[in-house]
Amino acid sequence: MSKKLWQTSSNLNPIVETFTVGDDYILDTRLLPYDIIGSQAHARMLESIGIISRTELLDLEKGLSEILELSQKGEFHISKTQEDCHTAIEQYLTEHYGEVGKKIHTGRSRNDQVLTILRLFMKDMHTDFIVSIQALVKEMDERAMEFQNQKMPGYTHAQLAMPTTVGKWLDSYARAIEDQLSIFSGVSGILDQSPLGSAAGFGIDSFLNDRALTTKLMGFGKVQQNPLYCGLSRGLFEHNFLSTLSWVIMLMGRMNNDLLLFTMQEFQFVSLPDAMTTGSSIMPQKRNYDLCELVRASIPVYLGHSDQLRNIYTHLMSGYQRDLQLTKKIFIEATDLAGNLVEVFGEIISNLQFQSETLDTAMTDELYATERVYELVRTGMSFRDAYLEVKKGLF
Amino acid sequence: MSKKLWQTSSNLNPIVETFTVGDDYILDTRLLPYDIIGSQAHARMLESIGIISRTELLDLEKGLSEILELSQKGEFHISKTQEDCHTAIEQYLTEHYGEVGKKIHTGRSRNDQVLTILRLFMKDMHTDFIVSIQALVKEMDERAMEFQNQKMPGYTHAQLAMPTTVGKWLDSYARAIEDQLSIFSGVSGILDQSPLGSAAGFGIDSFLNDRALTTKLMGFGKVQQNPLYCGLSRGLFEHNFLSTLSWVIMLMGRMNNDLLLFTMQEFQFVSLPDAMTTGSSIMPQKRNYDLCELVRASIPVYLGHSDQLRNIYTHLMSGYQRDLQLTKKIFIEATDLAGNLVEVFGEIISNLQFQSETLDTAMTDELYATERVYELVRTGMSFRDAYLEVKKGLF
Amino acid sequence: MSKKLWQTSSNLNPIVETFTVGDDYILDTRLLPYDIIGSQAHARMLESIGIISRTELLDLEKGLSEILELSQKGEFHISKTQEDCHTAIEQYLTEHYGEVGKKIHTGRSRNDQVLTILRLFMKDMHTDFIVSIQALVKEMDERAMEFQNQKMPGYTHAQLAMPTTVGKWLDSYARAIEDQLSIFSGVSGILDQSPLGSAAGFGIDSFLNDRALTTKLMGFGKVQQNPLYCGLSRGLFEHNFLSTLSWVIMLMGRMNNDLLLFTMQEFQFVSLPDAMTTGSSIMPQKRNYDLCELVRASIPVYLGHSDQLRNIYTHLMSGYQRDLQLTKKIFIEATDLAGNLVEVFGEIISNLQFQSETLDTAMTDELYATERVYELVRTGMSFRDAYLEVKKGLF
Amino acid sequence: MSKKLWQTSSNLNPIVETFTVGDDYILDTRLLPYDIIGSQAHARMLESIGIISRTELLDLEKGLSEILELSQKGEFHISKTQEDCHTAIEQYLTEHYGEVGKKIHTGRSRNDQVLTILRLFMKDMHTDFIVSIQALVKEMDERAMEFQNQKMPGYTHAQLAMPTTVGKWLDSYARAIEDQLSIFSGVSGILDQSPLGSAAGFGIDSFLNDRALTTKLMGFGKVQQNPLYCGLSRGLFEHNFLSTLSWVIMLMGRMNNDLLLFTMQEFQFVSLPDAMTTGSSIMPQKRNYDLCELVRASIPVYLGHSDQLRNIYTHLMSGYQRDLQLTKKIFIEATDLAGNLVEVFGEIISNLQFQSETLDTAMTDELYATERVYELVRTGMSFRDAYLEVKKGLF
Repeated sequence: MSKKLWQTSSNLNPIVETFTVGDDYILDTRLLPYDIIGSQAHARMLESIGIISRTELLDLEKGLSEILELSQKGEFHISKTQEDCHTAIEQYLTEHYGEVGKKIHTGRSRNDQVLTILRLFMKDMHTDFIVSIQALVKEMDERAMEFQNQKMPGYTHAQLAMPTTVGKWLDSYARAIEDQLSIFSGVSGILDQSPLGSAAGFGIDSFLNDRALTTKLMGFGKVQQNPLYCGLSRGLFEHNFLSTLSWVIMLMGRMNNDLLLFTMQEFQFVSLPDAMTTGSSIMPQKRNYDLCELVRASIPVYLGHSDQLRNIYTHLMSGYQRDLQLTKKIFIEATDLAGNLVEVFGEIISNLQFQSETLDTAMTDELYATERVYELVRTGMSFRDAYLEVKKGLF
Repeated sequence: MSKKLWQTSSNLNPIVETFTVGDDYILDTRLLPYDIIGSQAHARMLESIGIISRTELLDLEKGLSEILELSQKGEFHISKTQEDCHTAIEQYLTEHYGEVGKKIHTGRSRNDQVLTILRLFMKDMHTDFIVSIQALVKEMDERAMEFQNQKMPGYTHAQLAMPTTVGKWLDSYARAIEDQLSIFSGVSGILDQSPLGSAAGFGIDSFLNDRALTTKLMGFGKVQQNPLYCGLSRGLFEHNFLSTLSWVIMLMGRMNNDLLLFTMQEFQFVSLPDAMTTGSSIMPQKRNYDLCELVRASIPVYLGHSDQLRNIYTHLMSGYQRDLQLTKKIFIEATDLAGNLVEVFGEIISNLQFQSETLDTAMTDELYATERVYELVRTGMSFRDAYLEVKKGLF
Repeated sequence: MSKKLWQTSSNLNPIVETFTVGDDYILDTRLLPYDIIGSQAHARMLESIGIISRTELLDLEKGLSEILELSQKGEFHISKTQEDCHTAIEQYLTEHYGEVGKKIHTGRSRNDQVLTILRLFMKDMHTDFIVSIQALVKEMDERAMEFQNQKMPGYTHAQLAMPTTVGKWLDSYARAIEDQLSIFSGVSGILDQSPLGSAAGFGIDSFLNDRALTTKLMGFGKVQQNPLYCGLSRGLFEHNFLSTLSWVIMLMGRMNNDLLLFTMQEFQFVSLPDAMTTGSSIMPQKRNYDLCELVRASIPVYLGHSDQLRNIYTHLMSGYQRDLQLTKKIFIEATDLAGNLVEVFGEIISNLQFQSETLDTAMTDELYATERVYELVRTGMSFRDAYLEVKKGLF
Repeated sequence: MSKKLWQTSSNLNPIVETFTVGDDYILDTRLLPYDIIGSQAHARMLESIGIISRTELLDLEKGLSEILELSQKGEFHISKTQEDCHTAIEQYLTEHYGEVGKKIHTGRSRNDQVLTILRLFMKDMHTDFIVSIQALVKEMDERAMEFQNQKMPGYTHAQLAMPTTVGKWLDSYARAIEDQLSIFSGVSGILDQSPLGSAAGFGIDSFLNDRALTTKLMGFGKVQQNPLYCGLSRGLFEHNFLSTLSWVIMLMGRMNNDLLLFTMQEFQFVSLPDAMTTGSSIMPQKRNYDLCELVRASIPVYLGHSDQLRNIYTHLMSGYQRDLQLTKKIFIEATDLAGNLVEVFGEIISNLQFQSETLDTAMTDELYATERVYELVRTGMSFRDAYLEVKKGLF
């Protein structure tokens, strides 16, 4: 019968059990590979300091490999009563390899265990986002080159203002996103430290974890020394991740706002192919940009996740509190949504069909009023007088 | 082969399809019974105005009953390509009852159809919440009676302030929640109007829906006349619902903050039974109030949902936009969470074990300093002088 | 030398003093009239239960009238060291009327004093908003009548959808706002209870405030009985106020989004007179709808205030905590902004210049596609077949 | 008579004028020095490309110096009708130096002018924050050294968990804040580019601004090339600034939550001197930690500002829109609040009085339960069995 790591009797109130377990047992299927990495490193360290023997280590490594393999085949199940992957792994090891399964938790706690697997997961995700956003920028750059000479009206206050080009418009978003990416490296830096061995958040004075070894084995840049700081970083690093990422998403949102306008029948500056638009159940004539509308609506959804995480964090005192469990789901859902948005937006960018004819027609005289001011400036008139002169001619 | 209501060819880009369909085909299983109610009313109305015959109506009613039955047995499946329950229902009817299936969408659009089923769902949910919150208040009142004479310290600025009782403390939350419930009735009122027949949000000039009839058949209090207003209410009514409900949740949150403090070992004013607390994976001595911590963390999660919905709403112009699709999931998740919170919190209230001994011991002298000021006031001293007199004696 | 109500020595760290006092001494000038009302009622009650004599009451009433008069002339100053209007009033009374000034605080605390004046202020403001929003609805209704026959295109997904009229469009917002107003009455109800006499939030057992009397004197509907509930309502009632009001503001925001689109040169469905638009410092041809842009930007600013208040509230345990001081400024700023928005939006509505010519020109054939479907339905064709038939003809 | 830069006639509706001008004319007094720097650089550039003569440049430089001097003496006033410092400066120059005043706006727009002065202001502020936060960390480190051996209980789930020290507790926050500072450098990088010469957001094709020269003169690291990107960065860079800063504030908030608990009478682990605490108007015995409560309440206020700014940003299309004007006030208020918080929190840290006696007394046996588990582990027992063994002994 399965028991939680901390349980001695299983008389938990069922309403309480359902509420406290949450969806962790489902989410953890996804995090399991990282728990295997962390547990392998921890096991090797335990052997190196003599807590387990060489044979026991081999058993653990074998067991962990089996779990990973089963999991990849979809055959390793985390039950609701086990609550999370940590318990499921320890129980498998104890069941199949006996006594040594009861030793693997030596020198660690669920707190640093979950911190470790989330850190590993976040490092991977962060790298993935950097790569996919760089690809998005590259796509934008290519499209910008393609349309560098295509004139389009520039708007201020949503009114026709001055001439610009499709190329410059695309380039402006590419440069903005690229600059935001430069802030990401600070986050990469703080993610690259290992919390394993911080135990319940206070270290274990009488037990000498070789934290440098596990750090190295898992490929982290350094040890996150202060165990209380390890605890403080839960939720905070997630928010660092989501916030920096939100800037790229906000920029995609701004560009998408332009697209929602420029695809209207009154503009027709740009369109998307039929395979990316949808119809109406009652109006047979419609082609709708649902895709862009869903991108727009996804921005506040994403930001809402980031805020939920932040607002959970700010209520807490120091030391682990269960509130933090909820940040796991929020973080995973938010990064999934962000991943989709980057993918979908890349698809949009590469399928944009700019309409030269409508764009050229839209380049009306009024867009050149500032140019006319500067013609007068070149004749020696002061800017302010030239401005008033041109204005007088217009109304 | 299944097709969406609006589709003529099915060459949709797969990335686009996945992103635009979202989870609706899963959520809609839950909303399906309301679509049956709406479709039944709509079919009877179509018969009454001569669009379908009596026989056709009977076929539709039979078909709709079958769908409901299948659905209750878990055998009516909405496929991802069908996108939502509307398409699934229409296809079932056409497949099993021929031509009449193609007539049921006469005089309505997906817009008013989804508005209608959400409105019916919201009415039911709203009633449920009122009932369960009233039960929570009743539980609080009973516990307040039980402990009306149990003294406990009152705090201001988190410092010992003046004497109060467990009864008054419980009663204060009961009264606050009860008052908030009085705002709910305004929301009940606006939910009680039928949007069916508003079609795509502009009515259909050449088609005379008998909106009064469908309104009556579905049990709504009145017709929501202006079709553009029907459209505007999507998302807004959901936010009305979630916001008013949030006040009850915020009050539970405040009470829960008290509990998180009063259950600390330094207080021990109150405890929960073992079946409602949890242990630690590394510290064998711990009994933790994870339950209360998860309640605390759920507050910003709930509020975050409400904010997501609101922030989607504020970006829009008038007329249906696909953004609103995302509000469905947000609303359902938020109300599910709220339902859990009310249930769990009721469980907490009824299991609170107040500790008379510690409470009595905590009633130290300093709590009575204000009483001593009033003793002096009764001797004729002015309040301000009495205050200074008592203060002098204290430090 | 001025001292705070609670102070015996004035050696407060200056950084601490500045930070803790905040802007209250400025904001309180505005709230002072309500403090006079509350203090008058409290004084009369103190006389009725024999704490002060008839003569003393007359002195207090005289003093309070003087303060009000001075304040209306801008000659009653609340100094930063006095911190708030409560201290300033008590000091004035003591200085000018001697001993009785030290008695007026008998039976109350700063907590219920500030709760009372804010409650009175909120009641007034709430009534004002109801009146001004009703006027806004009336204005919309008049303009809707004026343009009931002016056709305009209806949009879904920001694409031309079906025909509608300017009248229906205006009416939809009027009906939506009117319905939201119906939720306001629940808030009016809870605001109409008097917290005076709840003292520091726990009542005063040994002192018999005649709360029914002060309630009646100040014109409240009932006593807010439980003193701990009085405390819990600080911040919550403010949030009730701001949230219900936010729905009206969100609807103005949606309508404003339409205006920002319909005033673009590509639409020109409607315009505002020159006196309500602005120019550019560099482009002489521009007329900009800055006004509508500032309305749009004010929506998240307003909502942000509401969220700040809410998020302060959710962190607290029961019993007064200084955090609540910050809700005063937030509430006043938010209602000021809302008041401006309602005023400015009324000005916009009454100045909208609908452009018949452009509106008529915009009524293109495609808007009538659904009508053509219904022409076929009238010939006996099923809706779905008619839909496909019309669609075929369009592409 | 004063006129706005863009105005030809001054018949603006007064309600519109008040609403659109906002508080800019007050805020801009503070930003004026940066406008002088930007205008000086721009004037020198205009001279270098032959738009103004050497003599005219000297006039402008003299005029700008005069304005700065007047402003520092509080004698340069921006009137409400002038709306902002840009207009006020140009009018002063034209009034005192004639024709050349009308030339200074050549090659720039209010858009890039305000972008430039805000960028300069943000650069200064950002450097200030880095310096003051580093000082805060240093103060924490010193206090951590001072109390490195003072034991204190470590809590998880707000329950006594394991032994730690005051030193480690302080160090954990210092390390966390220090790491967050490492993300700041990415923001410093993007702030260090000059938007001057991007004009209205589209550059000016026929006018060759020497942007490299103004960039160098103002001390920026590089030119922000794409003029549309310059526009996109308004509001975004502000949000980058506020968000990264928010993490430091959230960490101060977490530490402050600990303090609010540890200063309770039930704990008395630490206290603040009388000069930093306050009293009660009714309870003479109280010493309250209002300061910490106001710090706590300031966190959601600060975050609310950041959210307002973000939510304004996400609604926009590309190209300047007046919505962005509101970000100025939000940004300045938020950074002022943050500056106060860092200062006040530094004051708190340096005045914390740790109470050795209560801390030592609080080190009860149960904190050492995990140590006892590890004693058994050292005897060869598996961790899981040792855990169960110790647990058995406890209950």
